[in-house]
Amino acid sequence: MNPPYPLDNVRVVLSHTSHPGNIGATARAMKTMGLRSLYLVNPKSFPDKEAEVRAAGAWDVLNNARICATLEEALSDTVLAAAITARPRDLSHQVFDARLGAEELMRHARQYPVALVFGTEMSGLTTMEVSKCHMVVHIPADPDYSSLNLASAVQIMAYELRMALPEPGSFSPTHPAVSMLAGFNETELLYRHLERVAISSGFLDPREPKRFMQRMRRLFARARLEKEEVNVLRGLLNALEKRM
Amino acid sequence: MNPPYPLDNVRVVLSHTSHPGNIGATARAMKTMGLRSLYLVNPKSFPDKEAEVRAAGAWDVLNNARICATLEEALSDTVLAAAITARPRDLSHQVFDARLGAEELMRHARQYPVALVFGTEMSGLTTMEVSKCHMVVHIPADPDYSSLNLASAVQIMAYELRMALPEPGSFSPTHPAVSMLAGFNETELLYRHLERVAISSGFLDPREPKRFMQRMRRLFARARLEKEEVNVLRGLLNALEKRM
Repeated sequence: MNPPYPLDNVRVVLSHTSHPGNIGATARAMKTMGLRSLYLVNPKSFPDKEAEVRAAGAWDVLNNARICATLEEALSDTVLAAAITARPRDLSHQVFDARLGAEELMRHARQYPVALVFGTEMSGLTTMEVSKCHMVVHIPADPDYSSLNLASAVQIMAYELRMALPEPGSFSPTHPAVSMLAGFNETELLYRHLERVAISSGFLDPREPKRFMQRMRRLFARARLEKEEVNVLRGLLNALEKRM
Repeated sequence: MNPPYPLDNVRVVLSHTSHPGNIGATARAMKTMGLRSLYLVNPKSFPDKEAEVRAAGAWDVLNNARICATLEEALSDTVLAAAITARPRDLSHQVFDARLGAEELMRHARQYPVALVFGTEMSGLTTMEVSKCHMVVHIPADPDYSSLNLASAVQIMAYELRMALPEPGSFSPTHPAVSMLAGFNETELLYRHLERVAISSGFLDPREPKRFMQRMRRLFARARLEKEEVNVLRGLLNALEKRM
C-alpha cells in the first residue's frame, strides 16, 4: 500500500477567525498548493457568502471544512502542531522559520497527521493556544511592518510545505534542451559570417578586429545559442550581404 | 557611499489589474516583506476605496504607486524583468521556479533596478508582455488547481526575495560586481533598430514580423545584454544601414 500523499496529512487550523473572506482566501491558498484539510475553531461567521467569493474555485476545501468548538478538538489525532506567529515569543517552544518549520512538519507528515495553527487577524494566537502546540513557526517579515494578512500567511506556509515535497512543481526549472543547442561548428561558421559582414559594412577594421569578435563570442556564449537561432541569424546575415 | 538596500531596487509591476482589492492586498504583501516600489499599468480602478481597505497599514506603498500607460514605461530603467506566470509557455524564456528566480533577481538588485511583472487576474500576462521580460518565473503549485490569487502570488515572490537577502548585518558592498547590464529602454531601442535593419535587408517581411523579433528578444534576454554590447551592436547596425 502506498503511504498517504504527505500533504494530505497536513491540516490548517484557523482559530477564531473574524473575517469570513479570510477563510475563503485560505481555502484557495491551500488548494493551490495541494492542501485540502481545513479546520475552523469557532469562526465568527461561517458559512458565509464572502468566504465563498474569496475561495474562487476552492469550494471543495471550504465545503469540507470542519467546524470545531475548541483547538483541542481541531488538533485531535495530530502528532505535531506548529503555532504560526508573526513575532517570536518569549516561550520555551522551539522556534523555526517558515522554511525549516515546513521541512520539520513534512518530515512527520509522511506518516502522521500534523497541523498548522493560525490565530485571529487582530491578535494572533493566545499564549494558551501556543502552549497546545509543539513548535513555533515564524514567517520572516519586515520588522517595521510584519502585519501579514491571515490568508497570506497560510499561502506562504502552504507554499513552503509544497516546496518541501521532493517534486514541488508540475515541472522543474528549464534550461534550453541540450539537443536544440547549436553545435560548435555551426556556431563558428556564424561567427565567421558575422565578422565578414561587420567588415563589409565598414564597422569592423580587419586590422583591429579582436575586441569586437571577442565581445560577440562572449555575448552569444552566455546565451547558449540554439540551432534555430543560428539559422535565423545566418539568414539575416545572408540578406545583409546581398543587399550591400 | 552605501549601496542601496537591495529590496529598494525591486519594483512590483501589476499589469491591467481588474480588482482594486488586489492592488491593496499587493501593497500589504509587499510591505510585510520590505518592498516599497509599486507600478500599476492601466489599472481598471485606482485609486479605489477597496484598495485602501485591503492595504491595511500599507498606505505609503499604495499612495506612492506609479500609474503607467504601458509596460515599457513601468520597466523603464530596469535591467532585469521577470514575468511571473502560472503556466510555462511555448517559445518561452529561461524558466526559474520562485526560489531560484528570486535569487537571480536579488543578485542584480544589489546594484540595479529589477522588476517582477504580474498580469491580470483572469489571464495573466500576454505573450507580448512576457516578451518584454528577460526571464519567466513559475510559482510551483498544484497542477490540478494552480489558480493563485494575484496578491498571493506577489506575497510568495516578495517572501522569496526577502529570504534571498543575506543575513541582516552580513550584507556588504563587496559582493562581486554584476557587470553593467543594459537598461530596458536602450535594449528596446536596440530591438527596434535590429527590426528596421532586418526589414531593409529584405530578410524580414514586415507583414509577418512576429516570430523573428520574438526569437531575437528571447536570445538576447537569455544573454542579459550589457550596456557595452548594446552600444557595439547599435554601432554595427548603424554601419549596415549606411552601407545599404
